[in-house]
Amino acid sequence: MNIIDPSLHKKDGANVVLGVLRGVGLGPGDPELVTVKAARLIGEAEVVAYFAKRGRPSNARAIAERWLRRGCEELLLAYPVTTEVPFDSSEYVAALASFHEESAQKIAAHLCRGCDVTLLCEGDPLFYGSFIHIYIRLQRRFRIEICAGVSGMSGCFAAAGAPMTWGDDILTVLPATLPQQTLTERLAASDAAVVMKLGGNFKKLRRALKGAGLIERAIYVERGTMAGEKIMPMSDKTDDEAPYFAMVLVPGRGRRP
Amino acid sequence: MNIIDPSLHKKDGANVVLGVLRGVGLGPGDPELVTVKAARLIGEAEVVAYFAKRGRPSNARAIAERWLRRGCEELLLAYPVTTEVPFDSSEYVAALASFHEESAQKIAAHLCRGCDVTLLCEGDPLFYGSFIHIYIRLQRRFRIEICAGVSGMSGCFAAAGAPMTWGDDILTVLPATLPQQTLTERLAASDAAVVMKLGGNFKKLRRALKGAGLIERAIYVERGTMAGEKIMPMSDKTDDEAPYFAMVLVPGRGRRP
Repeated sequence: MNIIDPSLHKKDGANVVLGVLRGVGLGPGDPELVTVKAARLIGEAEVVAYFAKRGRPSNARAIAERWLRRGCEELLLAYPVTTEVPFDSSEYVAALASFHEESAQKIAAHLCRGCDVTLLCEGDPLFYGSFIHIYIRLQRRFRIEICAGVSGMSGCFAAAGAPMTWGDDILTVLPATLPQQTLTERLAASDAAVVMKLGGNFKKLRRALKGAGLIERAIYVERGTMAGEKIMPMSDKTDDEAPYFAMVLVPGRGRRP
Repeated sequence: MNIIDPSLHKKDGANVVLGVLRGVGLGPGDPELVTVKAARLIGEAEVVAYFAKRGRPSNARAIAERWLRRGCEELLLAYPVTTEVPFDSSEYVAALASFHEESAQKIAAHLCRGCDVTLLCEGDPLFYGSFIHIYIRLQRRFRIEICAGVSGMSGCFAAAGAPMTWGDDILTVLPATLPQQTLTERLAASDAAVVMKLGGNFKKLRRALKGAGLIERAIYVERGTMAGEKIMPMSDKTDDEAPYFAMVLVPGRGRRP
C-alpha cells in the first residue's frame, strides 16, 4: 500500500506542493479497450510519460494517442538497447536497474515542481507492468494513484474465445523463462495456465507442454486484440518463432468444488 | 474457439438470420472502469441480459446502467436461492446446471428470432465468469463475440496499491474452496497468489496462509473499487467474516530470471 508522509501533500500549504503520479492501465492493445476512466485521466494529464524501446515508436503512446490532450507535455522513457546482451545476463539486469532509476528520477523532478504525471502502462499497471519498477522507487515519497486496466492476458482470452477459468479451476501464470522441468511440473499441476515471455523460450515451452500432456489443449496467441493478431492451436504451430509478448493459453475445464 | 457452421449466419440470406451473442466485461465494479468498447456495445444493444440473485438488484445492471439505451429490452436471469443448501452440495450443483441451461435457452430464443443479445458480465467474461456457462452451451450454434474487461482481481490490485507480479514471478489464482492442505502447498509454492471465493472458507484460508508462512505478506480486499471498500493487512483482520467475493492478495517480490 502507498503509505507516505501526509505533510508532503499540503496542496494549499505554502512551501510543499508535490504532484501526484498516476499509473494508468491501457489494456491489451486495442485503443477501444481503454477504460472510460483511463481515457478521462489521459485527457486531463499535464505531463504524460511512457516507455518505448530506444529508436522505436511507443506502443503505449500509440494506444493512448486518441485520448491525449493537444499540447500536453510528453516524457519519453527509452529502454536501453537489448539486442547485444541476453535478457537474463547480469549486465542487462544492471542496465535495466539504472534505466528504472533514471526514469524514476525524471518523473520525480516533475512531481517535485508540483506537476502531476500520468504514466501510461500497457495492460494492467500492477500485473507484470514496467510501472512497478517506478512505483517501488517512488511510493514512499509521492502520492500514487493507480487506474486498473484490462490485462494483456484477458485480451488474449477474448481474442481466442477461450473459456479460461471457471468453477473451481486453479490458474497458474508462468514466465517461459523458467527451466523446462519447472515449467513441466507447474503446467501439469494446474487446471488452467497462461505462459508469457515466450521469445527465445518457445522451443523449451513446447517441450514442457508435451511433457505435461497439454500440447493438444494449448492455444498460441500473438498480438491479441491488435492488428496482425494470430491465434492457433499449439499443435498447428510448426515453427519456433514467437515474439516475447506472445502468450500460450491452456484453458481450464471447470473444476467442481 | 467459437467455431460454428457459417451457413447459420447468412445475414442477408432469405431464411436464416441469427442474432449474435456479445459477452461484455464490465470490470471490477466502478462504472468508470468499463472499457470504451463495452460502453459503446451496451449503448447499441437491442437486448441486454444480466444475472442477479433472486429478489436482489443486479450488480451487473447497476454498473452498466449509465450506458444503457433508453427503451432497450432487458432480460433478467435470476439465480436460484442459495441460502438453504451449501454451495458444494450436489443439490446446489444440479440446481445451478438447470439454471444455466434455462438461461442459455432464454438467450437462444432471442438469437433465433434474429435479435442480438448483449450479456453483461462483471469483471472479465472468460475469467471465472458466469458467462462461461452460457458460452459453452451456445458456442456451436451461434456467433459469439467477447469484449474483455478489467478483472475483479486487477481492480483489487489497484485498490490495494499492491505491486502484484513483476520480473519472473509465478502467480497462482486459487479458490478458497480447496482443502486446507492443498491451499497451504499451493500458496507456499508460488511467488504471488490471489485467493478468491472466501465466504465460509475464510478461517481455513487463514490457517493455510499461516501454514505457508505468508500471513504477514497477505492483504485482505473487500469490495475493491466500490463503495464500502475495505483493505487491510491480513494480520490486522481479527474476525472471520468475509463476503464470498472478497479476495486475499499475496504480492510477489519480483523474481529474477
